[in-house]
Amino acid sequence: MVVASLIERKRDGGALTAGEWAALIEAFAADRVPRYQMAAMLMAILWRGLAPAELQAMTDAMLNSGARLDFSGLDRPVVDKHSTGGVGDKTSLILAPLVACCGVAVPMMSGRGLGHTGGTVDKLESIPGFRTGLSLDETRAQVERIGVAMLSQTPEIAPADRKLYALRDVTATVESIPLICASIMSKKLAEGLGGLVLDVKTGSGAFLPSIDDGLELARTMIRVGEGHGCRTVALLTAMDRPLGRAMGHALEIEESLQALEGKGPDDLVTVTMALAVEMLLMAGVADTAVRAREQLDRAIESGQALARFREVIEAQGGDAAIVDDPSRLPQAGAVELFHAPEDGIVQTVLPRVLGRAIIALGGGREEVGDAIDPAVGFVVTVKPGDRVRRGQPVGSVFAADQAGITLGQDALAEAIRVGPNMPHDVRPLVSHRVSPGGVEELA
Amino acid sequence: MVVASLIERKRDGGALTAGEWAALIEAFAADRVPRYQMAAMLMAILWRGLAPAELQAMTDAMLNSGARLDFSGLDRPVVDKHSTGGVGDKTSLILAPLVACCGVAVPMMSGRGLGHTGGTVDKLESIPGFRTGLSLDETRAQVERIGVAMLSQTPEIAPADRKLYALRDVTATVESIPLICASIMSKKLAEGLGGLVLDVKTGSGAFLPSIDDGLELARTMIRVGEGHGCRTVALLTAMDRPLGRAMGHALEIEESLQALEGKGPDDLVTVTMALAVEMLLMAGVADTAVRAREQLDRAIESGQALARFREVIEAQGGDAAIVDDPSRLPQAGAVELFHAPEDGIVQTVLPRVLGRAIIALGGGREEVGDAIDPAVGFVVTVKPGDRVRRGQPVGSVFAADQAGITLGQDALAEAIRVGPNMPHDVRPLVSHRVSPGGVEELA
Repeated sequence: MVVASLIERKRDGGALTAGEWAALIEAFAADRVPRYQMAAMLMAILWRGLAPAELQAMTDAMLNSGARLDFSGLDRPVVDKHSTGGVGDKTSLILAPLVACCGVAVPMMSGRGLGHTGGTVDKLESIPGFRTGLSLDETRAQVERIGVAMLSQTPEIAPADRKLYALRDVTATVESIPLICASIMSKKLAEGLGGLVLDVKTGSGAFLPSIDDGLELARTMIRVGEGHGCRTVALLTAMDRPLGRAMGHALEIEESLQALEGKGPDDLVTVTMALAVEMLLMAGVADTAVRAREQLDRAIESGQALARFREVIEAQGGDAAIVDDPSRLPQAGAVELFHAPEDGIVQTVLPRVLGRAIIALGGGREEVGDAIDPAVGFVVTVKPGDRVRRGQPVGSVFAADQAGITLGQDALAEAIRVGPNMPHDVRPLVSHRVSPGGVEELA
Repeated sequence: MVVASLIERKRDGGALTAGEWAALIEAFAADRVPRYQMAAMLMAILWRGLAPAELQAMTDAMLNSGARLDFSGLDRPVVDKHSTGGVGDKTSLILAPLVACCGVAVPMMSGRGLGHTGGTVDKLESIPGFRTGLSLDETRAQVERIGVAMLSQTPEIAPADRKLYALRDVTATVESIPLICASIMSKKLAEGLGGLVLDVKTGSGAFLPSIDDGLELARTMIRVGEGHGCRTVALLTAMDRPLGRAMGHALEIEESLQALEGKGPDDLVTVTMALAVEMLLMAGVADTAVRAREQLDRAIESGQALARFREVIEAQGGDAAIVDDPSRLPQAGAVELFHAPEDGIVQTVLPRVLGRAIIALGGGREEVGDAIDPAVGFVVTVKPGDRVRRGQPVGSVFAADQAGITLGQDALAEAIRVGPNMPHDVRPLVSHRVSPGGVEELA
């Protein structure tokens, strides 16, 4: 294999064979291809894209670089959800125990915070004692016992992806739909799933803001998933404003508990339920969306979903008492209300501004390995289109100290804009459903 | 300087400032920017190109990474020639002593073989004892004394270019006009020239075969040269067939001696004289092309040009007796004629086929540092358009042994195609002249 000639072919718009992708990824993972050659290849992929067969082969090679979970013999269907990431997106925390209550096994492997978005694993670790670093054996055992595990990517899963991702991060090659797809799917397929529901965020707070890019990513991921025998469906959901009210690790755990008790904010419940319904339909435990929703509502009303979350916390070493007493979660040193600056209608609640402010408050990482402050963040109680009066409290800053409060107030002032007219470009919460059969516009 | 954000900007089609280019190249040369980031940047440049101001700044930064020759105070104008490289292109060997006879100082710094093309430095080293590794001080002293030096790129000149070039070679980022231009011009500008004549090859044996690419490269190099106060002119010349008859290191030295005696093949003399005339005009030692050509012809007829080449060989430690007795040059172990396969008209003499065959015969490098056999090569006595009879000798193979002869015969059979009609796409030997004033079509 002459790597330079493979780069040259991709550079000139040609395609590599499946065998060439397999050899290249294997050699890169084994340190036999230098990072500078792979960096040039990644930029050429960003430029030229990957043909469907190439993407399939590259995903395969990354998947095959590591171990896989094997749930054959389990008495329940195995389904997971993946989100492309946003601000205030705590759907995973609610979905995993909720869907598990309806007879679906959920081995939910999640990531840490990335860019301006928070990560499910970091949120879970704000629960004192909670351990996300499960081995594959522990994961399988826990899923068999209580139907759900919530873990971080283990070192055995897709090591080629981890190495590639680190390189993409420093070579400006993150924003490529096929590379994003190969990275996500190689990890998700390693979970041994029968089905996968994708939550593709769109809007200013998403990594790929445009609907067109979101649809292309959805179609691409569905093609790869189905090509690997994993049923795959995607919903495009709004990330032009934060999801729910709470942003920040411990604050989002608290809001998730409220949602599991049936007291979550409407937008969060709507998106979570839409994804959960897809998971139940895909798993075959419900035959219509209406029946799926009924099952889910029952799991919440009966207290089973919350009880299942408590079981997960206990199983993974966390302090389950937080379920009844969320004040046991890390608490911010300073809290202050934010007031609407004038009479009018909320125009924006800008997710990137708030996501970046959480990092600046100490609630995210500038570099891999940085410690994070799980208590900081925001609660914003208004949405674009809401009418407000000058001086009305519309949010709160949770910070370590007074300097953080000032920073947080400034961020809220930048993110929450008030104007005289109804904003005209607010996205529907769930705008499109993409399946192997095509795209349905939902709103 | 956040390198990833510079890569991102170039990737998205934006431009870096002059200060950013200076900082990036300096940091890369000092090993403070990893090669994988520069590899991604190089591919982004290949994709997006460089704006004129960016190219100027990048060339400056590469030039400033090393030392420069300084000919201020010399009593003669200082002019050099650069060729983009071809097969059988020995014009430098003839031009340097010839132009020096006409009162122009020529500090000719050349390269080694690249791809399918031979390098002037390698050709000179086929002269027993010839030393191309002159220091900058030695070069200046020799140019002051005899008006000409012929050297390889010294380690002090543009070290950033050397490091970048090595990276481009293994990351499929050689074929970029701005990168080619920055590489050439950073080295040539370090020679302290007042003027530079470029020989831009076009046709199947050139690195950039199309006329359009050749014109763009010429215009780009002229812009950079003139922007640095170095007068620059380019001729586009034919490399759809080899230049002259001889290909291979010692064989080309021998043909250069013939040309310096006034016995060179027509095409070689035509191209060499066209370039030499430009050098004299640029230097201001002749005021019209006709007078320049007269001066050049006199230097050859009087024996001065050949005598000057002898002085160069003596000054640089070589065996000057080869001038009178070329049999002192390395001789091939086996020589065999090649005969025309049928009656007809020569359609092609393909330079890449013959250039690659010379490498296969041991007369080129597969890897940097490989030893080369200077005696091997080809002599081809026909040109496209020549009428031949079946069995007529039209070329010779010079090889180390019988296996080489077979390989060489096969290469000639592939390169020299004979057909019934006149070939219609033979390029004019000198097709375009490009100057700061514009492009003149010459044929």
